[in-house]
Amino acid sequence: MAESSRAQKLELITQRLRGFPDFPIKGILFRDICPILKDPKCTAAVTDLFEEYVRKKHPIVDLIVGLDARGFLFGPLLAQRLGVGFVLVRKKGKLPGPVKSLSYDLEYGKADAEIQEDAIAPGQKVLVIDDLLATGGTLCAACELLKVQQAVVLDCLVVVELKDLSGAERLKPHTVFSLVSYDST
Amino acid sequence: MAESSRAQKLELITQRLRGFPDFPIKGILFRDICPILKDPKCTAAVTDLFEEYVRKKHPIVDLIVGLDARGFLFGPLLAQRLGVGFVLVRKKGKLPGPVKSLSYDLEYGKADAEIQEDAIAPGQKVLVIDDLLATGGTLCAACELLKVQQAVVLDCLVVVELKDLSGAERLKPHTVFSLVSYDST
Repeated sequence: MAESSRAQKLELITQRLRGFPDFPIKGILFRDICPILKDPKCTAAVTDLFEEYVRKKHPIVDLIVGLDARGFLFGPLLAQRLGVGFVLVRKKGKLPGPVKSLSYDLEYGKADAEIQEDAIAPGQKVLVIDDLLATGGTLCAACELLKVQQAVVLDCLVVVELKDLSGAERLKPHTVFSLVSYDST
Repeated sequence: MAESSRAQKLELITQRLRGFPDFPIKGILFRDICPILKDPKCTAAVTDLFEEYVRKKHPIVDLIVGLDARGFLFGPLLAQRLGVGFVLVRKKGKLPGPVKSLSYDLEYGKADAEIQEDAIAPGQKVLVIDDLLATGGTLCAACELLKVQQAVVLDCLVVVELKDLSGAERLKPHTVFSLVSYDST
């Protein structure tokens, strides 16, 4: 992809992202990705940029793992571009059959992440995708679950990273690729 | 699409769907769509069949509206194929900014559906998508919310319809297109 095309796509994504102060609780500036999805060109731009990065950086990918619920919006699009499958990490009680569970702290609250036990074979190379990286609690939990399943986490992909919350630090040794980054306030 | 190709795609989807008895509560045979997503050919088959139907039946579509959370898995894929935007109907408290809310009864429990007030312009033609039609509570609530926004609901699209629960009856005058159908037990 030409540098100018990449810059145009990033600019479109930045234009579409909206900030809502004090949502869902006081002090959080919520970054709303809905306008990205509402614009088919912008949705394609997100997928293009993820695809370009992955093809350059990770020649072999077996599966995309997406986080409930906004990771579901972008994950299958990227998985289809790469011709690979998509696996769901969900909130507690949403997945049928035998699951692995992990409790973790959120930016605001607590939650459990679950994955189906047969979702991934040992040694499979996976990318984890979500819309946004804040403190990294959900992504960390997903990476832990994937470790239990003996998957190889190549990278975490997010549309937006809130740099000042240091989610990338918390995720180490895993790495994060984000399309755009902001502060959380 | 040739009839043979359509039949092959439907067979693949049927093969991938798994039934889990007594989930999430006793008496419900849960239809698990995870194996569809894990198989990129099967995911493409779902999108192909939805796209074929929509292009034949609804020449003008402005937006795809997807239901939280499994509608998010299939909606953006179809929206990208059609070159239109995707709008989210979410559970209570998940969408920032001014929203319209509606409380409704579920197959098992109660819930609220929400849509952003600026998501849809009056008169826009929309398709509502989810993974599964059971009693139709969530889809009905979504259609009601869309009516409040003066959208024109062309059709509801689901991968799986549980015929004996009569969701299609409840949804009238709205119509449903489903790829495969079963009984709920």
